[in-house]
Amino acid sequence: MRYGELNPPNRILLGPGPSNVHPIVLRAMSSPLVGHLDPYFMGLMDEVMELLREVFMTKNKVCFPISGTGMAGMEAAIVNLVQPGDEVIIGSNGFFGQRMAEIVRRCQGKPIEIFEEWGRAIDPEKVEEALSSSNANLVCIVHAETSTGVLQPLDGIARAARAHDALLLVDAVTSLSGCELRVDDMGIDVCYSGSQKCLNCPPGLAPITFNERAMERVRNRRTKVQSWYLDVSLIEQYWSEGRAYHHTAPISMIYALREALRIVVEEGLEARWARHKRNRDALIRGIQEMGLEMFPPRDRCPTMNAISVPEGVEDAIVRRFLLDRFNIEVGGGLGPLKGKIWRVGLMGINSSEQNVILFLGALERALKTAGFRVKGSGARAAIEAYGEWG
Amino acid sequence: MRYGELNPPNRILLGPGPSNVHPIVLRAMSSPLVGHLDPYFMGLMDEVMELLREVFMTKNKVCFPISGTGMAGMEAAIVNLVQPGDEVIIGSNGFFGQRMAEIVRRCQGKPIEIFEEWGRAIDPEKVEEALSSSNANLVCIVHAETSTGVLQPLDGIARAARAHDALLLVDAVTSLSGCELRVDDMGIDVCYSGSQKCLNCPPGLAPITFNERAMERVRNRRTKVQSWYLDVSLIEQYWSEGRAYHHTAPISMIYALREALRIVVEEGLEARWARHKRNRDALIRGIQEMGLEMFPPRDRCPTMNAISVPEGVEDAIVRRFLLDRFNIEVGGGLGPLKGKIWRVGLMGINSSEQNVILFLGALERALKTAGFRVKGSGARAAIEAYGEWG
Repeated sequence: MRYGELNPPNRILLGPGPSNVHPIVLRAMSSPLVGHLDPYFMGLMDEVMELLREVFMTKNKVCFPISGTGMAGMEAAIVNLVQPGDEVIIGSNGFFGQRMAEIVRRCQGKPIEIFEEWGRAIDPEKVEEALSSSNANLVCIVHAETSTGVLQPLDGIARAARAHDALLLVDAVTSLSGCELRVDDMGIDVCYSGSQKCLNCPPGLAPITFNERAMERVRNRRTKVQSWYLDVSLIEQYWSEGRAYHHTAPISMIYALREALRIVVEEGLEARWARHKRNRDALIRGIQEMGLEMFPPRDRCPTMNAISVPEGVEDAIVRRFLLDRFNIEVGGGLGPLKGKIWRVGLMGINSSEQNVILFLGALERALKTAGFRVKGSGARAAIEAYGEWG
Repeated sequence: MRYGELNPPNRILLGPGPSNVHPIVLRAMSSPLVGHLDPYFMGLMDEVMELLREVFMTKNKVCFPISGTGMAGMEAAIVNLVQPGDEVIIGSNGFFGQRMAEIVRRCQGKPIEIFEEWGRAIDPEKVEEALSSSNANLVCIVHAETSTGVLQPLDGIARAARAHDALLLVDAVTSLSGCELRVDDMGIDVCYSGSQKCLNCPPGLAPITFNERAMERVRNRRTKVQSWYLDVSLIEQYWSEGRAYHHTAPISMIYALREALRIVVEEGLEARWARHKRNRDALIRGIQEMGLEMFPPRDRCPTMNAISVPEGVEDAIVRRFLLDRFNIEVGGGLGPLKGKIWRVGLMGINSSEQNVILFLGALERALKTAGFRVKGSGARAAIEAYGEWG
């Protein structure tokens, strides 16, 4: 026996994702497998599509999970829409906007990047200007920038896109079911997400949806989609009545997603968004009471909270302390924010009073150990806030 | 409550895949999640690579699972190696060879297809001729053609490829750990598989390996790999010491694969290959005793058995009977073999005396119901064979 038992530690996952998995979803993962063409599985596929439409708030026919992680969702969205030479407007105010541009380049598209300081939202007027001064017919925007904790307001950008007959593609990896997102009402043409954030499902699936305008664009391409695996027209055929074999669906992950979506729908989206906001607000109260600052000056995302690392404190030591002493994972900064922020996810079931109070207490303990003079008690401030709100 | 409990039927998966999942692997799937940058997970990644090298029988540094299904493995293998204009030789004697050609075309490569009747292996002399009369520097071959049940002998093809300084890319989706496969010793440069066949893991991961010759080709590309998600150089950086973030690994699936590989290694590859052969041989005895015929005249794969549907019997009715009465899934034919063969997988733990005898009995029952005059008892013939072999 060279390899011992699989025995992972019992973490509280308050990083930028994955989040903890709901016990019902974990149990679904260990249900016996059926074949990917089994009548039972086909019924399940229909349920997953129906549930996903409800969670994306869309009537789109094309609405299913891509068999890969959130980044496969990003690539699938872009690769189906972009053809060589296409100009594509991309909001670039964080790590994931940069990635979109990189994928557009690999499709031989021409990204027109609207740069904004990391931690600030993209200005819709700049999108309008870029649309006016280019031939772009696609605008790509990250709804919740996981790298900065910014929640992008979408209405102005959606109006600008529609006015120029451009499609709006939205990355909702960190927002789906945690922040207000209404695909149809907000004028979003293509939207993708990941299973491992506010859905509390393990990573491995990327829910995606294309509306009819977007599918028309896909059907009228001059060239074949360069990725066979991510060709949405082929995948659609497998998820439609014909069940044309494309690839073997990751059965257990689909089980998990079905249960995760059911839990979301049972709570209700509006109740869920409100819960995420309330716990985020309590977290901010605590953080400010301790003499710390939230990183984004405004447009703060309720699911992914970026906190500035205070002067003189070493980021990694605090994170390691939280992990070793409290089994709490939080994230560090990426790129220009490395060492400068902590990323604290409160996603899905992890957005709870319990986690807010525990995290604030654990952070106080870690900061004191790191020699930082903590001003007031963050945990107490959060407890008071919850008390006020009832 | 619009959606009831997830309650899948308890199938015996004797189709072309997925196969049943080992109970230890199912249990691993429901272990608590850790983050994809957790120290525990990093240790696990190293174990998975070490185990995969053992199962692929390779010393290759690049050896990890792609975060997608077997088809993502196929696309990853091809997209990293093929550049626009490249000529690529492809053995086309079944469904999966055709797919390789399609993916090569989407990479703007030029497939040179060596066509062979479905059910027969590719002749190495034809590969040699194609190499001599083209500029191809890559040969793609399916080891176990899941659509026909043919096991492709690889030695002649490997020699031809090496003589022409071409790389040999092998699809081992249905053969890894069930048929003799020695990546290094057989002269295979790139090899990929799927988690859901002989490894008895749920679908969703595609183990892949590139040797140094192949990675040199990747590093010397004129153009970037068109898929960002499947760019092996970026994925390698995440699976190496630097742990450069690329995408969020499907944690639970990696847990499952680790346990699945451990079980393979504990049994030992040679014992495993022998077990697959023995049960395949018993199945053939039974099939022939019943007056039926195996589909491939020779080069039969021990993991995926294709049986000819006898004259006058309707394929789908028999399969439906097996599913409804016995909870046994078997596969039908694809493309030109639709309605003409049954595909019976005996993969990993599913390759057992128990399944062979049960399947033969169930098939006899189904055939009698379908009005076919079954010659002798297949189950008894298999029992006798097992008795003879001890």
